[in-house]
Amino acid sequence: MAQRYVRVQSQGGQLHYGLLQPDQSVQVLDAPPWLTGQLTDLYLSADSYVVLAPCAPSKIVAVGKNYAEHAAEMGGDVPPEPLLFIKPSTAIVAAGSAILMPNCSKRVDYEGELALVIGDRCVDCSPETAQSKIWGYTIANDVTARDLQRQDGQWTRAKSFDTFCPLGPWIVRELSPGARLQTFLNDAAEPMQSAFLSDMVFPPEVLVAYISQIMTLLPGDVVLTGTPAGTGPLQAGDRVRIEIEGIGSLSNRVQARPAMVVPQAATAEGG
Amino acid sequence: MAQRYVRVQSQGGQLHYGLLQPDQSVQVLDAPPWLTGQLTDLYLSADSYVVLAPCAPSKIVAVGKNYAEHAAEMGGDVPPEPLLFIKPSTAIVAAGSAILMPNCSKRVDYEGELALVIGDRCVDCSPETAQSKIWGYTIANDVTARDLQRQDGQWTRAKSFDTFCPLGPWIVRELSPGARLQTFLNDAAEPMQSAFLSDMVFPPEVLVAYISQIMTLLPGDVVLTGTPAGTGPLQAGDRVRIEIEGIGSLSNRVQARPAMVVPQAATAEGG
Repeated sequence: MAQRYVRVQSQGGQLHYGLLQPDQSVQVLDAPPWLTGQLTDLYLSADSYVVLAPCAPSKIVAVGKNYAEHAAEMGGDVPPEPLLFIKPSTAIVAAGSAILMPNCSKRVDYEGELALVIGDRCVDCSPETAQSKIWGYTIANDVTARDLQRQDGQWTRAKSFDTFCPLGPWIVRELSPGARLQTFLNDAAEPMQSAFLSDMVFPPEVLVAYISQIMTLLPGDVVLTGTPAGTGPLQAGDRVRIEIEGIGSLSNRVQARPAMVVPQAATAEGG
Repeated sequence: MAQRYVRVQSQGGQLHYGLLQPDQSVQVLDAPPWLTGQLTDLYLSADSYVVLAPCAPSKIVAVGKNYAEHAAEMGGDVPPEPLLFIKPSTAIVAAGSAILMPNCSKRVDYEGELALVIGDRCVDCSPETAQSKIWGYTIANDVTARDLQRQDGQWTRAKSFDTFCPLGPWIVRELSPGARLQTFLNDAAEPMQSAFLSDMVFPPEVLVAYISQIMTLLPGDVVLTGTPAGTGPLQAGDRVRIEIEGIGSLSNRVQARPAMVVPQAATAEGG
């Protein structure tokens, strides 16, 4: 089994990066593994921590219409260059946390995606260099208020609500060749989305190289690689699960956002 | 004179928040002033520090078409709700630093703007509460590759290049009633942009309240309030200066972005 890098909060409230063990305990690292993190002798037992999103990015750069079939279902073509947008880090929630549906939207969609975790500062990189800056891979749900996306023209509001970026549950270092992404709703056996990662129009190293020509990527930053065909609406009470072969499965429940809410929101790394 | 809160790097490389003194020395604070920051006995002399952008936000939330005349010059109406977009924190540069023009754009515009600095976590706030969460005010240049903005439809790439968010030079706690924003190019006496901040369609506290219904604002986050009419192109060799009465003046030179560049980019707070 591939090594699984997690980020957890201990009962004392401390944040730790660590390595998930087969018995679900976590061997603690003394820093993020893409920085200077080394394994310590500290283990957290399975009942003594809460899983957080596996990194705390300074930014999440995402790409639209990176699978041809999804571009078609959205009524458009694949763009000639990657089409970028940014999701705020406050949208991140961990595996198992709730996606909160805001009152102002009548249509909130799941979008299962491969997420890249950047390990090293990345400026003006070639695709070859960009590949070496991708420290690992995890799973994301680019939750989108589809009606607000259409209404606003700009996608920012529709994709930036607190809880609209489930991320995790862990990071692995390598992608399996031929890996498939599948999204499941509730107890259905048939996936709502099913695609090979190799169906991406712009593969990971090309996306990272492209973004690095525009903005510096920092260690721990996240790049979302686009969603395949089959996106669809979520309802309060649903559970949505995104699986990527060789990584694992990201599952979140859906509930209404209370009128006044203090959601579990990410903070800036160390901030 | 209003107190001026700065963020500086000392000769030893340390980052400090502090209070700018009339002799240009800086009295150091032991933390960001919107957190627990208290004045210390340490002073940095005028020749012993470099001015940085006055905060290191986890995100920059910006608003389009918030002055009616600018909406008209862009060929549109004022939107019925604030139209949001996000600029990455890596776009930030300090007063005096260079704006770097990327090769892939033939038209890079200045956009002078009032910037709000958030002092306290802000979720689902009313405008009244939002006002109390605005810790202070500074100046921003929402530099925009106008051709790429039109070409992409989504504004993210056009507004996210490294150095495309000059911010500073300092933060003041209060806005002057009736304050005017003016943008000057090179040695011209006549401003390219000139507007009263009171001409905003959605005033600061309404913007912050609106954003807080969508995403949590964190201490040190920045909200850009839109640009007035009169935006225009920059050329390599230009100097652009934005003045807001009661705050000060933000001046940056413009140069070509080298093919391979390691620009001065912000990092996440403490990250």
